[in-house]
Amino acid sequence: MIYLISDYSLGAHPKVMQALMETNLEHTDGYGLDRFSDECTELIREWIGKPEADVHYFVGGTPCNTTTISAGLRPYEGVITPSAGHIYVHETGSIESTGHRQFAMPTKDGKLRPEDIETALLHHEDEHTVIPKMVYITQPTENGGVYTKAEMTALSECCRKHNLTFYIDGARLGTALTWPENDLTIQELADLADAFYIGGTKIGALFGEALVLTHPEKFDDRFRYMIKRQGALLAKGRLIAVQLKALFAGGEDSLYFALSRHENEQAIRLANGIVEAGYELWVPHQTNQVFVIMDNAKIAELEKEFVFYTWCPYDENHSVIRLVTSWGTTEEEVDALLKAL
Amino acid sequence: MIYLISDYSLGAHPKVMQALMETNLEHTDGYGLDRFSDECTELIREWIGKPEADVHYFVGGTPCNTTTISAGLRPYEGVITPSAGHIYVHETGSIESTGHRQFAMPTKDGKLRPEDIETALLHHEDEHTVIPKMVYITQPTENGGVYTKAEMTALSECCRKHNLTFYIDGARLGTALTWPENDLTIQELADLADAFYIGGTKIGALFGEALVLTHPEKFDDRFRYMIKRQGALLAKGRLIAVQLKALFAGGEDSLYFALSRHENEQAIRLANGIVEAGYELWVPHQTNQVFVIMDNAKIAELEKEFVFYTWCPYDENHSVIRLVTSWGTTEEEVDALLKAL
Amino acid sequence: MIYLISDYSLGAHPKVMQALMETNLEHTDGYGLDRFSDECTELIREWIGKPEADVHYFVGGTPCNTTTISAGLRPYEGVITPSAGHIYVHETGSIESTGHRQFAMPTKDGKLRPEDIETALLHHEDEHTVIPKMVYITQPTENGGVYTKAEMTALSECCRKHNLTFYIDGARLGTALTWPENDLTIQELADLADAFYIGGTKIGALFGEALVLTHPEKFDDRFRYMIKRQGALLAKGRLIAVQLKALFAGGEDSLYFALSRHENEQAIRLANGIVEAGYELWVPHQTNQVFVIMDNAKIAELEKEFVFYTWCPYDENHSVIRLVTSWGTTEEEVDALLKAL
Amino acid sequence: MIYLISDYSLGAHPKVMQALMETNLEHTDGYGLDRFSDECTELIREWIGKPEADVHYFVGGTPCNTTTISAGLRPYEGVITPSAGHIYVHETGSIESTGHRQFAMPTKDGKLRPEDIETALLHHEDEHTVIPKMVYITQPTENGGVYTKAEMTALSECCRKHNLTFYIDGARLGTALTWPENDLTIQELADLADAFYIGGTKIGALFGEALVLTHPEKFDDRFRYMIKRQGALLAKGRLIAVQLKALFAGGEDSLYFALSRHENEQAIRLANGIVEAGYELWVPHQTNQVFVIMDNAKIAELEKEFVFYTWCPYDENHSVIRLVTSWGTTEEEVDALLKAL
Repeated sequence: MIYLISDYSLGAHPKVMQALMETNLEHTDGYGLDRFSDECTELIREWIGKPEADVHYFVGGTPCNTTTISAGLRPYEGVITPSAGHIYVHETGSIESTGHRQFAMPTKDGKLRPEDIETALLHHEDEHTVIPKMVYITQPTENGGVYTKAEMTALSECCRKHNLTFYIDGARLGTALTWPENDLTIQELADLADAFYIGGTKIGALFGEALVLTHPEKFDDRFRYMIKRQGALLAKGRLIAVQLKALFAGGEDSLYFALSRHENEQAIRLANGIVEAGYELWVPHQTNQVFVIMDNAKIAELEKEFVFYTWCPYDENHSVIRLVTSWGTTEEEVDALLKAL
Repeated sequence: MIYLISDYSLGAHPKVMQALMETNLEHTDGYGLDRFSDECTELIREWIGKPEADVHYFVGGTPCNTTTISAGLRPYEGVITPSAGHIYVHETGSIESTGHRQFAMPTKDGKLRPEDIETALLHHEDEHTVIPKMVYITQPTENGGVYTKAEMTALSECCRKHNLTFYIDGARLGTALTWPENDLTIQELADLADAFYIGGTKIGALFGEALVLTHPEKFDDRFRYMIKRQGALLAKGRLIAVQLKALFAGGEDSLYFALSRHENEQAIRLANGIVEAGYELWVPHQTNQVFVIMDNAKIAELEKEFVFYTWCPYDENHSVIRLVTSWGTTEEEVDALLKAL
Repeated sequence: MIYLISDYSLGAHPKVMQALMETNLEHTDGYGLDRFSDECTELIREWIGKPEADVHYFVGGTPCNTTTISAGLRPYEGVITPSAGHIYVHETGSIESTGHRQFAMPTKDGKLRPEDIETALLHHEDEHTVIPKMVYITQPTENGGVYTKAEMTALSECCRKHNLTFYIDGARLGTALTWPENDLTIQELADLADAFYIGGTKIGALFGEALVLTHPEKFDDRFRYMIKRQGALLAKGRLIAVQLKALFAGGEDSLYFALSRHENEQAIRLANGIVEAGYELWVPHQTNQVFVIMDNAKIAELEKEFVFYTWCPYDENHSVIRLVTSWGTTEEEVDALLKAL
Repeated sequence: MIYLISDYSLGAHPKVMQALMETNLEHTDGYGLDRFSDECTELIREWIGKPEADVHYFVGGTPCNTTTISAGLRPYEGVITPSAGHIYVHETGSIESTGHRQFAMPTKDGKLRPEDIETALLHHEDEHTVIPKMVYITQPTENGGVYTKAEMTALSECCRKHNLTFYIDGARLGTALTWPENDLTIQELADLADAFYIGGTKIGALFGEALVLTHPEKFDDRFRYMIKRQGALLAKGRLIAVQLKALFAGGEDSLYFALSRHENEQAIRLANGIVEAGYELWVPHQTNQVFVIMDNAKIAELEKEFVFYTWCPYDENHSVIRLVTSWGTTEEEVDALLKAL
């Protein structure tokens, strides 16, 4: 079986595994208080040009999002998200479990826009209403779409105008940063956001996300307490930093960027081949996810050889399938799928 | 100044005050374990034709809603509400404070419909998503609209088909039940719902809402623990029952219905007079709230003599105002406003 | 039957009822934004000598405690309480429902002491442990004991030394303030505490507690949002202020002090009579609760005529009963009990 | 520097790393729905003799404890723990963050006893009080003490008598099971408990704990929703199972038992050497933690060469230090410490 179901279906890139092996027998303090975490933090600060940024490490996106968002809100404050946002559609109410509302704003394409923020702000009148206080987006979006520099700048300016905290979920950030048409550098993103995370799980690591607080004063000043209380402080915390160091070292020339480019390239090959084969894409293709409208009989046939996700029904006879490339997707695997079409 | 701002701007109907005075020096147990609460519960059970219903008393709608909804959901379950629903727009995230999501469904007129429930159910796929498990509406709606028997039956059937708990907030239930065109009796409503409350605060009481669980098995079986934990168990609990007994005694001939009819009648006089005076209503008028589109200069003028709520902007020069009648609104007060137009 | 079970078994003092009657038909804004609330707040500020204090009104102690404590803590902070404290033993985990730990410190007599606070502080090491950040006591204690000025000062100094917020639950504050041996004025208490509430429910009101924040900067600066979110903002909020104004007007010469003295006096008569009749008190008597060791047969006999609470077993044949006097307890009722012994 | 500070200061046993390397390039579904998780679950079921047990995997003890405990309680129920229990002293209020009380019972030696449970049960009277509904212990205790079969049986019987759920935290379970004087097999423990977890992080894994529900009907029936909502579902979930399979394969002859024995043996060598060197142990030594009373000057000297934890002050001139052996502690490291004494 060939897996195109997700970017977390296999282990880590061999160089990441090698880093884990090489450091395996070194003793360090636990819970992220170790030299690897310090080194990775310095590496990230230099890379993004923010020597004062706070950096924290998580094993996954959900604990990172839940901790960060709850650490940036008072109890009666909520977070604005596109209604297709990951925290709204795929985290089982983790945000609400900390007592906070999500203002889920419908969008035409999964991208939040300043006018959506303005609409959400109308929810607040006085002490009878929840105060929208933070904006959450993912870069790229849940559908793979890449916010342009202009779009991201507009969101950031809207947040600053209304004193909202701007937080960007970067579970697949590398694929956005290396997308051919992308015009937004990570340094610029760090300027525009108050917090963001750089995701490793889906681009070459066993697990690991680096949360960057460029405006730590907008979050609880005992952030590590919030992480621990959320159950999200890994005992052998260095494991995350060891992996991310291996991925991030080199910045634009890093393994992280190389793997991200690889994911994009294979996805482009997929998307182009699919269109050439006469199929219609559900949304314009960007980054490492390709959504295709396909008739149900063909889907059943493909499922004998390929593992992928049927995203939603399209019409009576068709559904939308999602194909995802990962750091380990080979040209042969893509060719096999294209051939099967 | 003449108050048309709300139906809680003055005290209780004199007969309610008299009941409080007459029972003031009787000793009883606390926390609702008293003869008045028992008697009021029997009265309600007979009235609605549900001898097995559980009845609990609250001082207000927010603690009633929060307790009831959280007592009917598992942690990963949420409640479907029209996006104009009271719990979503005017309770400062009380539902979320108990860890539950609200699925806020946009509606054209404030009324939830079965298709909105079906749409909300699409949010649930698997353990990565919140399960919609309860439906919340108010009768009448936040805009005063009255669900017809056909509409309410359709909602109830949709809930039963999908194994959803159906809960109706009746903060102003009397005004719906006595609305001239209403075709849904309280006995029928009790059949269609799994839980509902009959509100006293806005129709003649100092405070007090009677929650009726017609399907108590759909809620936590230690319901009083949930009330106490929410901080909603009144020490002198009988005060609620004493008032509601005075209001509810007599069923269709009760003081509650008489006051509800009075609120409706004065609102009808208001609405008719306003239209005759050449103003446009924002939404078709039902029950005791009248929403009027008015130019801002006129609003400023009216505010010198009348106290009311400016609901929302309409266009550059106009806003929507809300006029509310209460059990104590006099003909003279209504006439004064109509004259001022 | 004669009720000595609690101080909330009957309604309000006639003068309180009269105040409610007299103001019943006046229109005001809702939710505590009315002239009565403003006037009561001014009255309290003058009485306690704190013109800058914030005052908020609640219908009961549990919502007051839960709102205040959660509004004064970050998520990873907890509150120190004597293990016999009301929030620990009789509020069904309302504090924990807001996500906060109670550090329940065993005491010999229900009174917290600075050494107990010091012990609790040992719980905090680093981000793996909850930070004790607030101290909660009741004056008088759950057993009726009155903290002396020296004791209260020591607690306050300990709190200030360790930067802890000091909050005093005064559900029965009047009985402590008017206790014959009491040496602590309300003005002094207001100086020593960061927040406290003056309870009306148990001393003459239908319901109502006035929360005083003498150091509002130690609590959430949007305190009314916290109240509403907790479901604790009464629609006809003025009802609390109307009652408390009637009780508090006059300060030392107020109805509140007169009723408190009455409760104490009848309790003293009870306690003295009980000891004279040869029974042993469980704890030294102070304020309006009397705890008596009594053999179980005698208890069964008394229960035919009197309603009271059997507090806990004492030994195989004896239990502890609690007798409580209220604003309405008559000399005759006390005499009847003493005669029955 | 020689690390004796914890059992999570280095990586995983080489055989565990090898298992990760060997399976690294295999594609599987995510979130624990993979063949390795299924195989590990079967392995555990066979090992403990419970073919019907539910097994779930976590990256650490805190998310495991928080999810399991909150999934086994109604909102107004709490968990009984020794006051030295890990959830009470080292998890930053994670349990309270889910709204539940911990009844922290003082013990003489860190071990909970049936009489402590009976005492905690006295906290429950009625709807004004939290219901103790679960019992939490760690095997071994936070001080390393091993519950005997008789002690564990007594706890289990007490729980069953009172309908309490019995949950055992086995972060270091292997060291208890292989302790020379231990008389309780894992099969017996599985019979006595309703749920327990077998910890990998501290005995040879990079991370990973296997939660076993032997009575899944006592917990939420949508347990995976609870895990995800807590943010505790690892994307590449198989990583835990791959490691634990490598550790657990073989049961009594497993690598897990071998490493546990090694930790114990080195700790015994440490403890014996320390006593021979004239130092006093703080508590009788069991399993892989050794607590030593040492004068502060000597501690300062040792800290130049060794990394360990100063647990608490003992008297003015002495403190208690904690020395912990891990799967990787060498004889030479132990000898070095003994020599330094």
